[in-house]
Amino acid sequence: MKPQALRGFRDYLPAEMLAKNRMLDRVAATFESFGYPPLATPALEYTEILLGKYGEEEDKLLYRFKDNGERDVCMRYDLTVPLARVLAEHGDVLMPFRRYQIAPVWRAEKPARGRYREFLQCDADLVGVNDPAADAEMLLLGAAVLRSLGIEGFQMRVNHRGILKGLTKWLGLSAQEPEAAFLRLLDKLPKIGEGAFMDEAEREHRLSGAKLDGLRRYVAQGRSTAECLAAMGEIAEEDAGAAEGVARLRRVLDLAAAGGAGGAIALDSSIARGLGYYTGIIYETFLDDRPDFGSVMSGGRYDDLVGIFANRSLPAVGISLGVDRLFAALEELRPAAKQGTPARVLVALFDEAGVGAALAFAGQLRAAGIAAVVYPEPAKLKKQLKYASEIGVAYAAILGSDEIAAGEVTLKAMASGIQERLAVGQAIARLRESLA
Amino acid sequence: MKPQALRGFRDYLPAEMLAKNRMLDRVAATFESFGYPPLATPALEYTEILLGKYGEEEDKLLYRFKDNGERDVCMRYDLTVPLARVLAEHGDVLMPFRRYQIAPVWRAEKPARGRYREFLQCDADLVGVNDPAADAEMLLLGAAVLRSLGIEGFQMRVNHRGILKGLTKWLGLSAQEPEAAFLRLLDKLPKIGEGAFMDEAEREHRLSGAKLDGLRRYVAQGRSTAECLAAMGEIAEEDAGAAEGVARLRRVLDLAAAGGAGGAIALDSSIARGLGYYTGIIYETFLDDRPDFGSVMSGGRYDDLVGIFANRSLPAVGISLGVDRLFAALEELRPAAKQGTPARVLVALFDEAGVGAALAFAGQLRAAGIAAVVYPEPAKLKKQLKYASEIGVAYAAILGSDEIAAGEVTLKAMASGIQERLAVGQAIARLRESLA
Repeated sequence: MKPQALRGFRDYLPAEMLAKNRMLDRVAATFESFGYPPLATPALEYTEILLGKYGEEEDKLLYRFKDNGERDVCMRYDLTVPLARVLAEHGDVLMPFRRYQIAPVWRAEKPARGRYREFLQCDADLVGVNDPAADAEMLLLGAAVLRSLGIEGFQMRVNHRGILKGLTKWLGLSAQEPEAAFLRLLDKLPKIGEGAFMDEAEREHRLSGAKLDGLRRYVAQGRSTAECLAAMGEIAEEDAGAAEGVARLRRVLDLAAAGGAGGAIALDSSIARGLGYYTGIIYETFLDDRPDFGSVMSGGRYDDLVGIFANRSLPAVGISLGVDRLFAALEELRPAAKQGTPARVLVALFDEAGVGAALAFAGQLRAAGIAAVVYPEPAKLKKQLKYASEIGVAYAAILGSDEIAAGEVTLKAMASGIQERLAVGQAIARLRESLA
Repeated sequence: MKPQALRGFRDYLPAEMLAKNRMLDRVAATFESFGYPPLATPALEYTEILLGKYGEEEDKLLYRFKDNGERDVCMRYDLTVPLARVLAEHGDVLMPFRRYQIAPVWRAEKPARGRYREFLQCDADLVGVNDPAADAEMLLLGAAVLRSLGIEGFQMRVNHRGILKGLTKWLGLSAQEPEAAFLRLLDKLPKIGEGAFMDEAEREHRLSGAKLDGLRRYVAQGRSTAECLAAMGEIAEEDAGAAEGVARLRRVLDLAAAGGAGGAIALDSSIARGLGYYTGIIYETFLDDRPDFGSVMSGGRYDDLVGIFANRSLPAVGISLGVDRLFAALEELRPAAKQGTPARVLVALFDEAGVGAALAFAGQLRAAGIAAVVYPEPAKLKKQLKYASEIGVAYAAILGSDEIAAGEVTLKAMASGIQERLAVGQAIARLRESLA
């Protein structure tokens, strides 16, 4: 057979993994700086835990099978339902409970360019309180994550389900299915544009007259936070839930500004989040330089999901990074050098007699905090230098018998080709300085 | 239904994950300091890639099913066969090729205490050369990994398949199945002891007279490297392959000593490694203080496996950490504080009016490199301090209206209960110093 990865799946080779792990390390460090610890749950769950939690169409995308003990099992579809299961199973978990989880999930989607059946989800959630301070923390956390990646130009666009509920009620679409269909349509607005959105809303939801005009005012794009508040205020006048939503958003925005993320956050009355389980604030995040990448980070408050297995109310607010999308955007914004190695120096093996000295020198480099890779057999120097250049180290270090006898080493800077022979201690100092 | 993790699987809650990730971060950093980059492969592979690679009994432990497209698929059973598939599929990968992979694998084993059907494998491999320098690097890498975890008292016990082949030939057990059965028995020697081993060898393999005496001399336990070399020398006199093995081990030991790991390595003629695919050096690692934990790190040279899909010779040498075993040993050797949070400071929310100031102060702490968690709703101070103590932060920070008006903050050291009111800048300096 032809050796190949399973259809819809892919490998991540070293150069890409190195860059991706650097990104994820920063994300995890930022989560932890906010007091979010990691959690790990199994790849497999009982089917009855997952089934019916995502929707009928989504259920069809589950990797579901019988295990060797005839148990009906599914591969993890997201990280949220497993979190709900964990909080019910480990009933003594202290509330408020924070956790992050960065782990693959599996969905049997139709493969497409850039879409795989296995992908990393990266979620942080705060469970056990429903307070504007928790909502604001999530916005601050999201902004801190992007800033830790060196991204300053982004906007978190915020809305509230209570306001949207007021809108659908006012439009006469508050029954479950019309409301869900309307929110899915609203979710598509940034992609399809205002014109197509209004056409479809008119046609599919049979809107006309004042309703259609009101909707047009509500969804108008490209407005300031103040203009959005005005549009939301129109709905709030008609509906107590929407009024509460507007008040809540005002408070959350104030707190997020006090916490230092004011400039990164804007209200956007068209943000809808297609998923049905949100109950309060919702947000999406767009990059100023690459709006075409779509939302790279999103989430919201969902007070009714995490408690389903625990049979108690567990309000929750969370944020989810689109890891692959964000990584692709980062690569386009600031392409990383495509190195195939984490090492900065290749130590060449000049001849059999010098292998021990070369291994010892590599050890000294590592002790000095310099990652060093040893060419793993004596070979022609030219071949080793070609390899050094191809994997992308900054320096090659050569220890011939002359160098070893003199306690020296020859350093070759790969970019310039300049060679220097230095005492071992000097060479290490030079490398530390140059690679810092 | 009762919400529970699937039988044979488990969750890792925050306190455990925090400690485990600290361990894995160090392991990964050590791999990278030797120039090993990460690789990621899918959780699922075509069944024909995996089936027949591990043995008949092992094939029964595969999680195998039909995916939604009726493809016959299996969950990853180890990280080595996927590596072989990657090297064949991505034919342009540069040789010598190094990579590490830390990822879960799935085996439908009978669950037992401490044994789960999902567990982390943690492998580093060096592919494309068969040279003593590569073997020595693997020993140096293994020693560096354990030292990076603060473990100094350990021994890597080394043997060579060529010598064992010479032994089985001399014993008249060189046909495939008797040899494999003998190696499996030898593998059990440290567990069952010399007496039981000799009894079973005599009975199962019908050994007697000079053969039995020779075997007894070969496997004698508790000997020095020099004594082992003498016992191996007896076999080497009878067999060219064994003689090559002895010469190779001498060279590898010399190189590992030159690289600084001499004291951590000893020959042990009874090391066998049950897996059939090893072709050269093999090693197991035992902790001086906890030999009862068994081998925590093992591996060897396997020159015929990684090239199977590529249809070319790809010699390889690798090392595999027993993550769960090593973690359990570390916890027993140096129990970590069971913190449920990565944060060092809890910032309390005194009242509604102070939430913004508290969020801002938490941001200042993070900017100073101090992980800070905010109690996510205004609540009774007593409740918040109890929470701070339970999740395990070192300090609580309180900003009441007096403090805020004065630009101050009250710090409470959780261990001593001592409270101090300081200017914000002073408080941050105090925390930096005290938590360093």
